[in-house]
Amino acid sequence: MSFYSCAHSLPSCKIFFSHDPIKIIQAKGQYMYDETGQRYLDCINNVAHVGHCHPDVVKAGAQQMEQLNTNTRFLHDNLVLYAQKLQATLPDKLSVCYFVNSGSEANDLALRLARQYSGHKDIITLENAYHGHISSLIDISPYKFHQLSDAELNPFVHVAPSPDVYRGKYRADHFDPATAYADEVKDIIEKVHKKGGKIAAFIAESLQSCGGQVIPPAGYFQHVAEHVHKAGGLFIADEVQVGFGRVGTNFWAFQLQGEDFVPDIVTMGKPIGNGHPMSCVVTTKEVAEAFMSSGMEYFNTFGGNPVSCAIGLAVLDVIVKEDLQGNALRVGQHLTDLLEKQKEKHPLIGDIRGCGLFVGVELVRDRLTLTPATAEAQEVIYKLKEQHILLSADGPHRNVLKFKPPLCFTTEDAELVVEKIDLILTGILKYASVFLARAPSKTGVSSMWPAGQNRPTRGSSCSSCFVKR
Amino acid sequence: MSFYSCAHSLPSCKIFFSHDPIKIIQAKGQYMYDETGQRYLDCINNVAHVGHCHPDVVKAGAQQMEQLNTNTRFLHDNLVLYAQKLQATLPDKLSVCYFVNSGSEANDLALRLARQYSGHKDIITLENAYHGHISSLIDISPYKFHQLSDAELNPFVHVAPSPDVYRGKYRADHFDPATAYADEVKDIIEKVHKKGGKIAAFIAESLQSCGGQVIPPAGYFQHVAEHVHKAGGLFIADEVQVGFGRVGTNFWAFQLQGEDFVPDIVTMGKPIGNGHPMSCVVTTKEVAEAFMSSGMEYFNTFGGNPVSCAIGLAVLDVIVKEDLQGNALRVGQHLTDLLEKQKEKHPLIGDIRGCGLFVGVELVRDRLTLTPATAEAQEVIYKLKEQHILLSADGPHRNVLKFKPPLCFTTEDAELVVEKIDLILTGILKYASVFLARAPSKTGVSSMWPAGQNRPTRGSSCSSCFVKR
Repeated sequence: MSFYSCAHSLPSCKIFFSHDPIKIIQAKGQYMYDETGQRYLDCINNVAHVGHCHPDVVKAGAQQMEQLNTNTRFLHDNLVLYAQKLQATLPDKLSVCYFVNSGSEANDLALRLARQYSGHKDIITLENAYHGHISSLIDISPYKFHQLSDAELNPFVHVAPSPDVYRGKYRADHFDPATAYADEVKDIIEKVHKKGGKIAAFIAESLQSCGGQVIPPAGYFQHVAEHVHKAGGLFIADEVQVGFGRVGTNFWAFQLQGEDFVPDIVTMGKPIGNGHPMSCVVTTKEVAEAFMSSGMEYFNTFGGNPVSCAIGLAVLDVIVKEDLQGNALRVGQHLTDLLEKQKEKHPLIGDIRGCGLFVGVELVRDRLTLTPATAEAQEVIYKLKEQHILLSADGPHRNVLKFKPPLCFTTEDAELVVEKIDLILTGILKYASVFLARAPSKTGVSSMWPAGQNRPTRGSSCSSCFVKR
Repeated sequence: MSFYSCAHSLPSCKIFFSHDPIKIIQAKGQYMYDETGQRYLDCINNVAHVGHCHPDVVKAGAQQMEQLNTNTRFLHDNLVLYAQKLQATLPDKLSVCYFVNSGSEANDLALRLARQYSGHKDIITLENAYHGHISSLIDISPYKFHQLSDAELNPFVHVAPSPDVYRGKYRADHFDPATAYADEVKDIIEKVHKKGGKIAAFIAESLQSCGGQVIPPAGYFQHVAEHVHKAGGLFIADEVQVGFGRVGTNFWAFQLQGEDFVPDIVTMGKPIGNGHPMSCVVTTKEVAEAFMSSGMEYFNTFGGNPVSCAIGLAVLDVIVKEDLQGNALRVGQHLTDLLEKQKEKHPLIGDIRGCGLFVGVELVRDRLTLTPATAEAQEVIYKLKEQHILLSADGPHRNVLKFKPPLCFTTEDAELVVEKIDLILTGILKYASVFLARAPSKTGVSSMWPAGQNRPTRGSSCSSCFVKR
């Protein structure tokens, strides 16, 4: 029996730097280590939220694994303690938790809750949105379904413009982009109604991540919620990528919109267990009661097991104990300040945007036309990898450098990565002609390899998939 | 802030014995322990496959959690080693693994693979089938969607009769039930074709679990596969409940059909990580290549992480090291023999069926009319609980006692539970009039409480869900 990388024959699986992938064998805090002991500074793994292999989280998981790991057909204190602690971070109205195993399971359940509550079927999603890998979510994820050659929009799904004030329909110079973008949603609702449809939900990441680190203008969610509620639908805030203190000023990214905004459903994922497969949907009593009234039991084999809850509790404790939300605010601000200085120096930097340790740097070839500097972005991440710094580029044009490091990231880390980016951008300026010759790729996939180098030449395993021959 | 059981206000969440639930705080092998230290013999938790909190599995998980837990964007040996070991248990043709987080994620991906490969949309599923809790799977799970008051069959889903030779359309006295049940699938395919539809897949649990511990007649899958392949569709074997050596004679339950049968896709779940949230889809190179050719990347944040793979490896090692498949065969045979003797004694026992440690005991009030003895089944499991033995009843009439214990279950355990069942059935015989007065419930939900006692009176947490008020 012989083995080969599925990336070799199956480009549906993508490893970072697939033409020269990294074999990481250990990680600690904001650092990862390869098989030679080489250390990498991790600027991208938002799953390792409180730092890779945090000892408190490891200990909590290991101890509970030794005691009991079973389903929620039995009572267990961990579930109660965890739900209490999680609910304490949220507005009072959000009072019912459903524990599941992944952000995808959470978003699928959110759609079920909304459809059951409203009795409606139509969903409004945003341009470039990504909400998960299961069937119902690919339908509402233009980021994914646009990768299909024969993409066919589900007739119950409607795509609203991304509230991107840099590259979108209404920009920073617009007098009220929040209202303008929300009016687009209102228009969609009216069109749906004219065709006899009815809105079950509007779903959006509180800050778009894969979609290009987009920060919606404050007030946008309030206006959208007003339109959606009027239509009998619910507002689902997807916090899978951005929740748990990452944005610094608040624990949840939807709170950036203002205290007067509370979603009807919040979905959580990635950072919730610092890598342990778990997630959660939180909603109101009214929505939960409507779901219950269907008569269909909701049961999830692994969801809410005592090990997952012990790990979830430890993550919440570490965030408080180490003031990681405060750290995200301080280090994120320092990182943004440093990057702003680079923007003055490098015309390639079109936009710096972010909150806390969720920061996007959009590279453009021309600040007026906003031509995406896709190849340049790939060059930056590739050169950073040579300097043992892990960063990635994403967005519809793969030209947005995205920072979402573990929250223990330090000001020194921020200074190091910005210093390296400065050097790389200076180098790119010298050899600008090389990049102008490279056409931007259309795959729309988060990438850590230069354009044109998507086919790996070595590797033994990859993206959740494995092949023997 | 005060808390109450969601079971109190939300019957969509069900705890075992909800009017007097058990608070389990520890478990080891085939035993669970409540907060008073009382030991329970566990005959139902097929997730704790190699025994609750098996030290080898706990150690493997804890050690890897300390080292590294990250996504599959990086290379890692655990993924390769695990895929190799898992593939070695399967026919050669099944050579590509996708690692995901739950049986539901696995079945959803299986549908996506089949639809992409075939270019078709229609799915054939079985009566009483349960394949998971996410939207796409509720559509193909009559066990679930029949719980809805306004159940509406998805137009792409077609339900074939369950190949149940005890209570189904073709019974043990039929000269060839395998062909007869397969012909029902063939008829469905013809009807779909007449309406312009095209078959993407036939999906079935290799042995129906929630559907009533149904063992399809040997040869049924081969005939079905022939019809489905002729229509351009794939055969998906759902091994989420029954795989990993439980059936004793074979590692996979689909192998009970004969060596000449190989499904196109196999989905795994529950026992794969002994409680750790993980699962897998295995398919052929051809199916994987068709999936890849769509151009859409498949990525799963937690799927195939080094911790899950380390745990999966440990589970496979323990199954071999402790000969748990052999134990399932031996103890399962002993259990079935003991139960057969009870059948001679108790007219309530209509049928004993099973393979290894997957055994169903169907209770009926009349062996000719097969009137389901639902209340009696509930009484048995409730009285067993008083004796500190955990068993459950399931199937469309909730009258099938289902045994699916951890595989370290012993002959002594089997003798104890059968002895207790004997006593309980003897008692029921004495007070038969009480039970005849109780109408069978129609909820179709796996139950561990007597009929009419579904509303719990105490409890602090439940089925994956938590509420504050």
